[in-house]
Amino acid sequence: MGRLTGGDPSLLRRINSAVVLHALRGADTPTLTDLTRITGLSRPTVEGVVEGLIADGLVTEAAPEEGEARRQGRPARRFRFRAEAGHLLGIEIGAHRVAALLSGLDGRIIGAGSREVSETASADERLERVRSVVTDVLRRAGVARGSLRAVGVGSPGIVEADGTVRLGTALPGWTGLALGERLRRSFRCPVLVENDANAAAVAEHWKGAAADSDDIVFVLAGLSPGAGSLIGGRLHRGFGGAAGEIGALHLLGREVTPETLLSTTDEPLHPLDEQAVAAVFALARQGDVRAQAAVDRFIQRLVHDVAALVLALDPEVVIVGGWAAGLDGVLDPLRAQLSRFCLRPPRVTLSLLGEAAVATGALRLALDHLEEQLFAVEGSVTGRR
Amino acid sequence: MGRLTGGDPSLLRRINSAVVLHALRGADTPTLTDLTRITGLSRPTVEGVVEGLIADGLVTEAAPEEGEARRQGRPARRFRFRAEAGHLLGIEIGAHRVAALLSGLDGRIIGAGSREVSETASADERLERVRSVVTDVLRRAGVARGSLRAVGVGSPGIVEADGTVRLGTALPGWTGLALGERLRRSFRCPVLVENDANAAAVAEHWKGAAADSDDIVFVLAGLSPGAGSLIGGRLHRGFGGAAGEIGALHLLGREVTPETLLSTTDEPLHPLDEQAVAAVFALARQGDVRAQAAVDRFIQRLVHDVAALVLALDPEVVIVGGWAAGLDGVLDPLRAQLSRFCLRPPRVTLSLLGEAAVATGALRLALDHLEEQLFAVEGSVTGRR
Repeated sequence: MGRLTGGDPSLLRRINSAVVLHALRGADTPTLTDLTRITGLSRPTVEGVVEGLIADGLVTEAAPEEGEARRQGRPARRFRFRAEAGHLLGIEIGAHRVAALLSGLDGRIIGAGSREVSETASADERLERVRSVVTDVLRRAGVARGSLRAVGVGSPGIVEADGTVRLGTALPGWTGLALGERLRRSFRCPVLVENDANAAAVAEHWKGAAADSDDIVFVLAGLSPGAGSLIGGRLHRGFGGAAGEIGALHLLGREVTPETLLSTTDEPLHPLDEQAVAAVFALARQGDVRAQAAVDRFIQRLVHDVAALVLALDPEVVIVGGWAAGLDGVLDPLRAQLSRFCLRPPRVTLSLLGEAAVATGALRLALDHLEEQLFAVEGSVTGRR
Repeated sequence: MGRLTGGDPSLLRRINSAVVLHALRGADTPTLTDLTRITGLSRPTVEGVVEGLIADGLVTEAAPEEGEARRQGRPARRFRFRAEAGHLLGIEIGAHRVAALLSGLDGRIIGAGSREVSETASADERLERVRSVVTDVLRRAGVARGSLRAVGVGSPGIVEADGTVRLGTALPGWTGLALGERLRRSFRCPVLVENDANAAAVAEHWKGAAADSDDIVFVLAGLSPGAGSLIGGRLHRGFGGAAGEIGALHLLGREVTPETLLSTTDEPLHPLDEQAVAAVFALARQGDVRAQAAVDRFIQRLVHDVAALVLALDPEVVIVGGWAAGLDGVLDPLRAQLSRFCLRPPRVTLSLLGEAAVATGALRLALDHLEEQLFAVEGSVTGRR
């Protein structure tokens, strides 16, 4: 009950402002009469709020609709949300690739770029690559850096609330890196750093395979799988930001690692060598017996990890993403095993966003942050604690 | 943003009423001046709200404080919350025992009772036992059945939102039982049915081993362990109410069951025979090698199940409860294994409430329901979705 305060008129003003802005973003150039009807507020209240939003640059008067001008008398004024009043960035910093998506304040994507990076690159080199991709995307879209209102970032590792990477073994120099602070030097707006699987979960919920569900687990299948989950539509980070870091589960009880599980020789695979992994999947499809056995072992392990998540969380949907190719084959065994072991088996589906998932989720986090600021009352989908 | 509505004066009245009631429950017989100061509301508003609460029977004028009467002039009126205006019940329906706790509207316990029941009892017999325990507790406390405002119930199984047991293999006749509906025939107030491990998690958070944490996992250790979790102080039930039902996890990959793990002969233990289990733990403490090996196998399995929960959820605290005796020995191996495998190992502790945990949690759920009604605005700790 800590947040309850008495009837606070400034809170009421903020709620009213948020309600009108929300209605403006949802409707197509509404009139004051439309806004009065949608919000249930009085006309003077709506008028006052709209004038304030125009003064803030967030709303502008729209041209009258076709036909209206022909009717008698002055047409009613129409208004629209100014998505162009600012911009948002979503950035993925991965082992092999950095990528950026640019949008207006409505989250609609107006620019994109990506670049390869070596898995052995130092943190400085990787961040330099990020800066060059961002500069390039902004330049091509003709957007000034000062127009950015929030930047979201998705990257492997356990990320603290301030954007520091607490543990990130997948990238050299990542553990202990003050990633948020480093990136904030490049931007004059808030920078939100999130674990990559968490960002991907947010993305699939926003515009991917789980747009119709609020209780989802996204599995970033890799040699060491990670997972992100939404509970009741909200990102579940865990007490220390480590929720879904199930990579260690296979170590319990057995001493076998995914790198040896998927190997077709006596040598373990390199943990980050996606091409080698894709090659094993391809060989298996061609009927190679040894590769098939390796893939079976890998799928068994993935099923076990996912089952643990499902039993703990009981999601409605499990989305499998990660390696673009080769994952189709895991769906059926995953479904079969989950129906065998779970009291209420979830729907299992492939990622719709593929390799765009992490940057898309990072962009959504930037949009959430903006909406929290604009609306300043509860209700955003994936707000940080 | 679906819940946002414009500045609604009746909402404001409800918020003000909840704020005053909250202040009244938290303070010791406050005056109108005290309430004005605590709530930040105007004196006429506070006065109006207090009169309304008195008319509803929830608040009454308290006697003047010692010394006040001696001072000159008429002492300021003092008010208090009428915890005696109604009552709440928390009920555990277990495999071997049914139990009930009775409280006033403040949740303070004023009556308790329990009775053994056979694990082979039919659903009708078990419910009859519940009714007789409740009748007995009410009679001894001198509380009329009509005074009950809400009843919480904790029981094994996956429980639907309406109180139907979707799956409950631990008790005969439990799967498919319309438990909520059956119990509602005995009470004229709301009856809330919850999974037993979930109820226990709520209890340990309320007044047990996790009163200082909002991110907890409670493991109801048994031959088939169950778990309940709070995330950000709210009970996490999962999409289908099956979250934490990790009993099947040990079936993955290995064909060994807990009943065989803990057996010291070639015969598996009976799944519900807690005495046999306690005997094995006792033998192990006395140095019996075969019993020690059985306990080691059991602990390994428990560690694996708990590790899966911890990796998926990343709680701050893990509480182990269930069998009253014999569990002390699991804490150290559990801590050691969790620090080995979890990126951020949680604190591990034993249940403080012991066998009272489930009924206590059920009582808290009844109290939450009452508070949701009284306060009619967001803010309760463990509200149902």
